[in-house]
Amino acid sequence: MIGSDPKVTVINGPNLNLLGEREAHIYPQVTLAELERLIKAKGEKLGLTITTWQSNSEGELVNAIHKARHNCDCLIINAGAYTHYSLAIRDALAVLNVPVIEVHLSNIYAREPFRQKSVIAPVVTGQIAGFGVASYLLALEAARLLLQKQS
Amino acid sequence: MIGSDPKVTVINGPNLNLLGEREAHIYPQVTLAELERLIKAKGEKLGLTITTWQSNSEGELVNAIHKARHNCDCLIINAGAYTHYSLAIRDALAVLNVPVIEVHLSNIYAREPFRQKSVIAPVVTGQIAGFGVASYLLALEAARLLLQKQS
Amino acid sequence: MIGSDPKVTVINGPNLNLLGEREAHIYPQVTLAELERLIKAKGEKLGLTITTWQSNSEGELVNAIHKARHNCDCLIINAGAYTHYSLAIRDALAVLNVPVIEVHLSNIYAREPFRQKSVIAPVVTGQIAGFGVASYLLALEAARLLLQKQS
Amino acid sequence: MIGSDPKVTVINGPNLNLLGEREAHIYPQVTLAELERLIKAKGEKLGLTITTWQSNSEGELVNAIHKARHNCDCLIINAGAYTHYSLAIRDALAVLNVPVIEVHLSNIYAREPFRQKSVIAPVVTGQIAGFGVASYLLALEAARLLLQKQS
Amino acid sequence: MIGSDPKVTVINGPNLNLLGEREAHIYPQVTLAELERLIKAKGEKLGLTITTWQSNSEGELVNAIHKARHNCDCLIINAGAYTHYSLAIRDALAVLNVPVIEVHLSNIYAREPFRQKSVIAPVVTGQIAGFGVASYLLALEAARLLLQKQS
Amino acid sequence: MIGSDPKVTVINGPNLNLLGEREAHIYPQVTLAELERLIKAKGEKLGLTITTWQSNSEGELVNAIHKARHNCDCLIINAGAYTHYSLAIRDALAVLNVPVIEVHLSNIYAREPFRQKSVIAPVVTGQIAGFGVASYLLALEAARLLLQKQS
Amino acid sequence: MIGSDPKVTVINGPNLNLLGEREAHIYPQVTLAELERLIKAKGEKLGLTITTWQSNSEGELVNAIHKARHNCDCLIINAGAYTHYSLAIRDALAVLNVPVIEVHLSNIYAREPFRQKSVIAPVVTGQIAGFGVASYLLALEAARLLLQKQS
Amino acid sequence: MIGSDPKVTVINGPNLNLLGEREAHIYPQVTLAELERLIKAKGEKLGLTITTWQSNSEGELVNAIHKARHNCDCLIINAGAYTHYSLAIRDALAVLNVPVIEVHLSNIYAREPFRQKSVIAPVVTGQIAGFGVASYLLALEAARLLLQKQS
Amino acid sequence: MIGSDPKVTVINGPNLNLLGEREAHIYPQVTLAELERLIKAKGEKLGLTITTWQSNSEGELVNAIHKARHNCDCLIINAGAYTHYSLAIRDALAVLNVPVIEVHLSNIYAREPFRQKSVIAPVVTGQIAGFGVASYLLALEAARLLLQKQS
Amino acid sequence: MIGSDPKVTVINGPNLNLLGEREAHIYPQVTLAELERLIKAKGEKLGLTITTWQSNSEGELVNAIHKARHNCDCLIINAGAYTHYSLAIRDALAVLNVPVIEVHLSNIYAREPFRQKSVIAPVVTGQIAGFGVASYLLALEAARLLLQKQS
Amino acid sequence: MIGSDPKVTVINGPNLNLLGEREAHIYPQVTLAELERLIKAKGEKLGLTITTWQSNSEGELVNAIHKARHNCDCLIINAGAYTHYSLAIRDALAVLNVPVIEVHLSNIYAREPFRQKSVIAPVVTGQIAGFGVASYLLALEAARLLLQKQS
Amino acid sequence: MIGSDPKVTVINGPNLNLLGEREAHIYPQVTLAELERLIKAKGEKLGLTITTWQSNSEGELVNAIHKARHNCDCLIINAGAYTHYSLAIRDALAVLNVPVIEVHLSNIYAREPFRQKSVIAPVVTGQIAGFGVASYLLALEAARLLLQKQS
Repeated sequence: MIGSDPKVTVINGPNLNLLGEREAHIYPQVTLAELERLIKAKGEKLGLTITTWQSNSEGELVNAIHKARHNCDCLIINAGAYTHYSLAIRDALAVLNVPVIEVHLSNIYAREPFRQKSVIAPVVTGQIAGFGVASYLLALEAARLLLQKQS
Repeated sequence: MIGSDPKVTVINGPNLNLLGEREAHIYPQVTLAELERLIKAKGEKLGLTITTWQSNSEGELVNAIHKARHNCDCLIINAGAYTHYSLAIRDALAVLNVPVIEVHLSNIYAREPFRQKSVIAPVVTGQIAGFGVASYLLALEAARLLLQKQS
Repeated sequence: MIGSDPKVTVINGPNLNLLGEREAHIYPQVTLAELERLIKAKGEKLGLTITTWQSNSEGELVNAIHKARHNCDCLIINAGAYTHYSLAIRDALAVLNVPVIEVHLSNIYAREPFRQKSVIAPVVTGQIAGFGVASYLLALEAARLLLQKQS
Repeated sequence: MIGSDPKVTVINGPNLNLLGEREAHIYPQVTLAELERLIKAKGEKLGLTITTWQSNSEGELVNAIHKARHNCDCLIINAGAYTHYSLAIRDALAVLNVPVIEVHLSNIYAREPFRQKSVIAPVVTGQIAGFGVASYLLALEAARLLLQKQS
Repeated sequence: MIGSDPKVTVINGPNLNLLGEREAHIYPQVTLAELERLIKAKGEKLGLTITTWQSNSEGELVNAIHKARHNCDCLIINAGAYTHYSLAIRDALAVLNVPVIEVHLSNIYAREPFRQKSVIAPVVTGQIAGFGVASYLLALEAARLLLQKQS
Repeated sequence: MIGSDPKVTVINGPNLNLLGEREAHIYPQVTLAELERLIKAKGEKLGLTITTWQSNSEGELVNAIHKARHNCDCLIINAGAYTHYSLAIRDALAVLNVPVIEVHLSNIYAREPFRQKSVIAPVVTGQIAGFGVASYLLALEAARLLLQKQS
Repeated sequence: MIGSDPKVTVINGPNLNLLGEREAHIYPQVTLAELERLIKAKGEKLGLTITTWQSNSEGELVNAIHKARHNCDCLIINAGAYTHYSLAIRDALAVLNVPVIEVHLSNIYAREPFRQKSVIAPVVTGQIAGFGVASYLLALEAARLLLQKQS
Repeated sequence: MIGSDPKVTVINGPNLNLLGEREAHIYPQVTLAELERLIKAKGEKLGLTITTWQSNSEGELVNAIHKARHNCDCLIINAGAYTHYSLAIRDALAVLNVPVIEVHLSNIYAREPFRQKSVIAPVVTGQIAGFGVASYLLALEAARLLLQKQS
Repeated sequence: MIGSDPKVTVINGPNLNLLGEREAHIYPQVTLAELERLIKAKGEKLGLTITTWQSNSEGELVNAIHKARHNCDCLIINAGAYTHYSLAIRDALAVLNVPVIEVHLSNIYAREPFRQKSVIAPVVTGQIAGFGVASYLLALEAARLLLQKQS
Repeated sequence: MIGSDPKVTVINGPNLNLLGEREAHIYPQVTLAELERLIKAKGEKLGLTITTWQSNSEGELVNAIHKARHNCDCLIINAGAYTHYSLAIRDALAVLNVPVIEVHLSNIYAREPFRQKSVIAPVVTGQIAGFGVASYLLALEAARLLLQKQS
Repeated sequence: MIGSDPKVTVINGPNLNLLGEREAHIYPQVTLAELERLIKAKGEKLGLTITTWQSNSEGELVNAIHKARHNCDCLIINAGAYTHYSLAIRDALAVLNVPVIEVHLSNIYAREPFRQKSVIAPVVTGQIAGFGVASYLLALEAARLLLQKQS
Repeated sequence: MIGSDPKVTVINGPNLNLLGEREAHIYPQVTLAELERLIKAKGEKLGLTITTWQSNSEGELVNAIHKARHNCDCLIINAGAYTHYSLAIRDALAVLNVPVIEVHLSNIYAREPFRQKSVIAPVVTGQIAGFGVASYLLALEAARLLLQKQS
């Protein structure tokens, strides 16, 4: 893999397109566009090529994860509310051979009971939650470490 | 808000496009098209501009709710079976600043156990269930009252 | 039933006699007397003869429902806290041949878990909750519609 | 206790005053007055002095059970819907020193789940359910047998 | 059915062959043989022809119930511990066209939690529990009444 | 509030009128009348004006709590069996602006499971249980302390 | 329906497009294309006209089931992970008048707890699970038999 | 195994000897003898030697399964009500080295909750349910396929 | 009890006749005959007269336990899968006046959840599990100790 | 016990050494040292000799309770968070022959669900909760009363 | 391992230092010192070198188990109340490479529900419960057998 | 805070002193000493002064957390098995004013059910799990970011 940076895909799920509009005491005051810009800047610093993508549809998210099988070296995903019940997304993630990092802006374990259970957690490599925008940046650091270990 | 009627969006969820075909002992014998005509007629009488929309897809319903943020003064929603498990729709509704009214044709509390729990109810303004087509007409009356209170 | 308006009985259960004193962030700032006046005014406009009644006692509420069998064409009931455990009231309502409409001032599904379950809901015609005083006014509209359908 | 028949009190709980009006496929087509006449006739045949009483109020039923402490040799009770949740009636029954027989017209174990649990059963002598009016007549036979055993 | 008494089969399940040896504070101090003699004497008085039978084996009890289909007019059964888990006995009882009366010597609802649930109760006509030997005698009275009603 | 003692209302719920007759190993051997005399004597010593009251009826208890709003500075309540299921009493207590002290003669947490849950505890100021008659006397001491703190 | 073969639609749900890539110890080593070829060959042999279709989207699956109402004589569905939570798909299937057969490649009852519950099973005609590719072939046989019975 | 057809044992459990008498809306109108004749006819067509056997006794069914270890190439079992609780039958099936196919006449997942759980399913090769008599015929087809795969 | 050794009965339940054939990683590689020989040899060394017996039938096991009442001084039982649900065996054991020792070859608490609950444990004297064949030998030592204590 | 004051030991559990620093809206603004001073002053007034002690370690608390067996006439304990799960402390308390009073600064029944269950409550004499520092002072009054009753 | 006896460590957990003082109907009337003397005498007879140790502290028990890794050939542990919730002790035991035997003086399955679950049982070799002091002596016999098998 | 690096305390809980010995398929093959060296090296690179500490005792961990209040700017904790039940540690962490980061070597959500619930998660700032040793290194990065945000 000489001459090219590792590729990392960052997928955001339902309602994250409204970032910056939603409950200010829980979510950071940045828009999705700003968040994606921060992610890309951090990626550049770490020598990672970043692709970002968002959808509100469970089926489209499954499709996107399927495509990631051949297109990236690491997947970072914030599945939003689907985190708590989408077994379809869980199954899609379980097929991947690259590391998967689950991120959440908020500390989901300090919120409503139905948000304290992640059905995708058992099939991911690791989870980072509760650091706001920094959750994504730490996930990139983690991706960096995981990819070094493999090479 | 002089010179223009308040705008109300009425969203119907999965399987409601089959209205009139489904279990006659539970659901009224009108088609979705007829239902939407009745809703619009009632809206006109109450001085409300009505938009109606239906989808079987959870993701499209989330998209439609997002759009309603800037396009209407009150949202009326029958989320069908998604009522009972779609946290993504719940999160989308929670972002809205306008009143949201949950309607059901049947009295969901007199049906199967899994239909007796609404995950969206905690984030709506109020709920009207069990009056068949009239559930929607009463929701329009409720919208009328809620909008007067605010102005 | 020529020459006489349909009769609607409106029954309020425990603690509703304190309306206006109770948690202001949940309940409207009107007294029970004012609420009953608003209900009667709305009834008059809709051509309905209204009787209102309140009690804190489960047994008296059962008695009152029994009497309603022969005295009214539609029953509207806010059973207060009994909503959540009174099987005796449920059984009394199940005997009635006239439509029964359950109302709640607040959206009970957005409150404490023990208020999110109604044991009477399975035997009523429909339920209207979360519109404050307007819940009762909408129930009268619903009664109007239900009585037309039958005649 | 020479020269006098044993005294048996028969208490009926909520909604049993409507007997004969209620769901014909579950309950027998006799009124409460007719039921009480049949009970008294049977009592006479068995040499028992019968007192009958009915109320829809939990508190009045507790009072009546308290009075029965000094007034009867055996208590027969159909607590209606209170059977399933009234710990106050349970506590009142637990104080009695005379045998208590719980009766039900219908087989409560073949009905809705919430009717399949009796909170008073653990403190009664025995239970007879499912024989319609005959449940009461069998309870009188049982009272007869229990009183003989003691004397 | 002129000239012949109705036939009643009384079936006892596991461990009832040890009656008289078992926990004296719960069970009456009579042997199974004495119990069956008392049942037959009572049957004679009521004009009923009694057959009694006991087994500790679930399969044999199912066989015996199957045979009862063509041999009796009413079945009385104390299924012992199988009462609480034998779906096979439940299914066998559900096939019968004659009335079935479930009896228990003790008040099962005042004992251990696992004895407070009868899986056969939902398919029987009625249940009599807690009167010791008299539970069987009352069941014969009940059989008498049920058979009269039918003829 | 110069020149007058603080007023404390002590309310007893269902079956407490039988005090002294009930299970001697759990409840103290004093009658309700004697208990109320002891309470009043202690109140006098602490400079508190005591009113006592008892009812077996849930509705009457709700009424009495409502009246206490304007008539006393502190409410002490032993709701008996209603403690475990009366949401109506809970709602009535929640309206009060004066401190409420929940008392129990026995240690309810060492008894049957259904007595180990108090539905009113979350809305009271504090709870004292398990000291027999002294539970009431300690509650008066607590009332004394709470009223001092406020003045 | 002379002169034409019965039509059978075979719908595959989420992640089944990756067949052959997924956990080899659970799923057969054939691709979806190969599976569909085998299904069609078998259909031809049985005199059935087969249509196959796959989607990862819950809403599209609902749409496809709706279309099947008028286009086929029997529906075979492997709803993948949606099997375990999609009440929307359940409702769509419940509207169909043709037989519906649920299939699974693996024996879902021998896997993780969350896969051991099918929410669609209560509304299908029958279920075949655990035979790998043969599950589909047996479903075609079942369709053949069900269609014969009807004609 | 030249010159001889594979041997398949078909075991039926409790109450299946009453087939044709039991609830007509659930079970097919054929007797056990007719069912076994149909099974044998189908077996002959598929080149399978069939042995059929039925018992109401859990212990006898365990014995029969033990014998099947050395006598057959495939076992088909309808364990009736034992399906839902017999861990003894489960353990017996787990010892077998030949494929085991679980069959049910009705769709057990569309019936009462206690019938929706099969304790033997985790140790069988596959399950076929809901096709009436055809469930057995499909099981024979499945046996045919499974035996080919092995040879 | 001079001149005769104490008598110990060792009862084995369902599927233990297949010992040596069953899952080799869980169960020891000895047959039932060999196990019984080891038990008898150990018994002889300890001065105990051993009787061994096995059955797959719940009813026969109940019968055998009944017989043990008069025939032995201590009962050792491995109830196999019946351990987890047979209330009939539990009731039979509860009648015995001699000590009862429950044994298991494997550590049932390290296996499937449904094997981690013994319904007979609450009525036995003690339990020994997880030592393979030695579980029986230790049970004989325990019997030896328990019988000494009594004499 | 002439000539010496009764001895009362007051034990505080984990995190109570931080009193005064912890959530001000729940806990009083006094340090542990100040609390202990108040307790001793009150003890002196009541003629009680007080020993106070605190530890964060479950094992040390068990040790301290063991020592209290011989050193005091009454034990008062606030077990902090161990209240909710320490069966070891429960067992230690159960050995004591002197009365034990459980205290809590806050009303634990109005807090998080996991704090609403006390595993030690079933083995104590009584419980006082919700009066802040006064909970300890009332416990001393209770100790005074309990010790008088005994002497 | 020539020339030296196998080493067995016996660890006792919380409250066992009070043996002989605790509930006489459950626990034997010997002190911990006497118990340890009996254990050592038995060990000597079996050719085992015994070390005994007791602590009330969970952390110290974990430390002691860690030390046992290098110091003994078999560990016998009675974890007292920690048996039911200490995952820390469970994890410590899971690291050991030597056999671990769990003992209990009483039959924990015949006591309170919270004592009927052992969280350490899934990671031990075997369990012996209910034989009083003899539970330890049998554990030594078991250790003897397990160590022979390995050598 | 000029001239000095921020201080970070890293606390490890029970059994982590055995790191490198424990289940190799779950935990990394480094000892605790090596882990602490890696943590310190990383800390140095990030400009953080690191203190590390380990204990198996719940009480000592509570003490250590209390001390951290005044000694560090950020706390990183791996509470080992206490993560799943120690409310005492939870309460201690809740008092801290500095950020707290929960780390786990393994992905606890992919392990046994009892490890999938963290009782401390609701009171920490964020959680990182599943990256082996890198979990700690990522936690240090997180600390770095959190401390920058504050300054």
